[in-house]
Amino acid sequence: MIVLFSDFGAGDPYVGQMRAVLAREAPGVPVIELLSDAPACDPRAAAYLLAALAGEFAGGSVFLAIVDPGVGGDRVAIALEADGRWYVAPDNGLLALVPRHVGETQWWRVIWQPAVISASFHGRDLFAPVAARLARGESPAGEPLDGSQIVGGDWPDDLAEIIYLDHFGNAMTGLRAAKLASKTRLAVGGQVLARARTFSDVPGGAAFWYENANGLAEIAVNGGRADRELDLAIGSEVKEFET
Amino acid sequence: MIVLFSDFGAGDPYVGQMRAVLAREAPGVPVIELLSDAPACDPRAAAYLLAALAGEFAGGSVFLAIVDPGVGGDRVAIALEADGRWYVAPDNGLLALVPRHVGETQWWRVIWQPAVISASFHGRDLFAPVAARLARGESPAGEPLDGSQIVGGDWPDDLAEIIYLDHFGNAMTGLRAAKLASKTRLAVGGQVLARARTFSDVPGGAAFWYENANGLAEIAVNGGRADRELDLAIGSEVKEFET
Amino acid sequence: MIVLFSDFGAGDPYVGQMRAVLAREAPGVPVIELLSDAPACDPRAAAYLLAALAGEFAGGSVFLAIVDPGVGGDRVAIALEADGRWYVAPDNGLLALVPRHVGETQWWRVIWQPAVISASFHGRDLFAPVAARLARGESPAGEPLDGSQIVGGDWPDDLAEIIYLDHFGNAMTGLRAAKLASKTRLAVGGQVLARARTFSDVPGGAAFWYENANGLAEIAVNGGRADRELDLAIGSEVKEFET
Repeated sequence: MIVLFSDFGAGDPYVGQMRAVLAREAPGVPVIELLSDAPACDPRAAAYLLAALAGEFAGGSVFLAIVDPGVGGDRVAIALEADGRWYVAPDNGLLALVPRHVGETQWWRVIWQPAVISASFHGRDLFAPVAARLARGESPAGEPLDGSQIVGGDWPDDLAEIIYLDHFGNAMTGLRAAKLASKTRLAVGGQVLARARTFSDVPGGAAFWYENANGLAEIAVNGGRADRELDLAIGSEVKEFET
Repeated sequence: MIVLFSDFGAGDPYVGQMRAVLAREAPGVPVIELLSDAPACDPRAAAYLLAALAGEFAGGSVFLAIVDPGVGGDRVAIALEADGRWYVAPDNGLLALVPRHVGETQWWRVIWQPAVISASFHGRDLFAPVAARLARGESPAGEPLDGSQIVGGDWPDDLAEIIYLDHFGNAMTGLRAAKLASKTRLAVGGQVLARARTFSDVPGGAAFWYENANGLAEIAVNGGRADRELDLAIGSEVKEFET
Repeated sequence: MIVLFSDFGAGDPYVGQMRAVLAREAPGVPVIELLSDAPACDPRAAAYLLAALAGEFAGGSVFLAIVDPGVGGDRVAIALEADGRWYVAPDNGLLALVPRHVGETQWWRVIWQPAVISASFHGRDLFAPVAARLARGESPAGEPLDGSQIVGGDWPDDLAEIIYLDHFGNAMTGLRAAKLASKTRLAVGGQVLARARTFSDVPGGAAFWYENANGLAEIAVNGGRADRELDLAIGSEVKEFET
């Protein structure tokens, strides 16, 4: 299975163009569009989201992960094998959090280049063909790489910021809920919020935080929109208070 | 075939996460994303839309229908077999209109539970695996249920409200057009509108109502946006006038 | 492979309804959603976009192309065979640019009609079944047509207007970059822009134009949104200056 994770936009043609390449280069391999509205041009926020979402996918899955504001510049292409899953991405931190919480990992620098490559759409021209190679069971077409050389290797394991806003207005943080005490309060958007199990455990209109279905601490309002009521955006700061 | 109908958002990762479960639990079964922007947290409006859309799908189709503001609370999970199609959903009215206009129906209360379940994403953890069971030809993993016990069983057959706004700005009502006389006028958003066959039968800029391709009365403006010009939202009231 | 190109909206149910028809009429044929947010009700802008995107698809691909503001009126349905690819569309100019830059072409007027057809959704009722026929290797169910009779046959090969805005805020023109000299400047939104290779070659915040990955001249701002900063919309005029 090939899993698409990018900021290419669910409504734009770019994901379909990548699918066309995958259909040609890896015919018959199922392709799942996990997220095409990852934080735009923000590989750091996207990195925490990708790591939280990737764990539930089966071994053998190939993640084609593209948030690539430096496309056409000198950033290199990398691949990562982690616990039997493969990841292909630009080396800008997007994969930095994936290997933190898994066992065996191996990094690669991708050397393969297509005969023709555009200056602005390496998702289609470079990364999709490499993902197709991996889905066919071939090598990543690169050379082994020392993981300490990867961009983002020094980022913290948890990020005390908003990293994603969904269409309900819920705001995911880069904090793993399992690392927070049950009495931890989160200060965000000028309010200090207590933890709850889920929406139906708090009164209508109340703001709270909870462990979302991907293990992250998420800010929400029961029956409302946390993004508007707390004036949240990707990058908004979150502070922990132990009480 | 498994048909996805939810308010999970076409741009968020939740549909992709359900697809991953379906690919694992029912490999090879085609999955069609019918609608992922159903009226958010509004199972009543969504119920009229689902009933209008479902009829065209082939026998054997399994609908995975999730609009679930009560997730994590005490609402139960149900399944419905109606004219050879299966539906899996929370018991909050979302399926209430489906069996009104078909022949044989059988309701089930779903008893199966996964080993691990999140508090906020039963679409992935509970409903998707049950839909996969049904797509594999297995039982709904529940016990037969009396349909009179279903939430929404007392809702009217037709709903005189706006139930869906599309991206063109057209506004669907919960009224079946076949139940309305050809001279019926609909009052909505401060205007009284006559029926037309379709857009090209009225002057540019004119507001009208017509029988849409799913059998519902729909409010539209030729070459314009009915939602803005008539200030319509989901839940806006519609009144019928026979003339 | 069947390729979907329409203005039906990535978030609305219409694409899913077409997919259901294709799954029934051409089971097992891969379907790729290339673009569902083509310029709404604007077959002229969409025509230049479709022609730019279509070239990369493999021979044998069938394009189901629907931007159809005249649905239900007297416009006819057409099919085009061009360099081994098939296209099905309303005769409103949407296919007019496709055959300009290819070799062998053959036009058809589609005569086939379904037993039941809605007044407003021929994408589902008429065009999708015809696309399925073609994907099965059957005839277009029509009669040969002289290409000079096609709507849009007199449109220019290049359109000096904005034809598409993506979710990053980049603005595609209908001009093929290969036809413009490297020193050509483009005046748009009150500014005169020089050509660059790609984003990373200009300073942050700078507006420029470049050859996008589909061969079109595209207006962009490095790290910003060209649509807002230059106040661009579909149809905004672009002027070329040779210097």
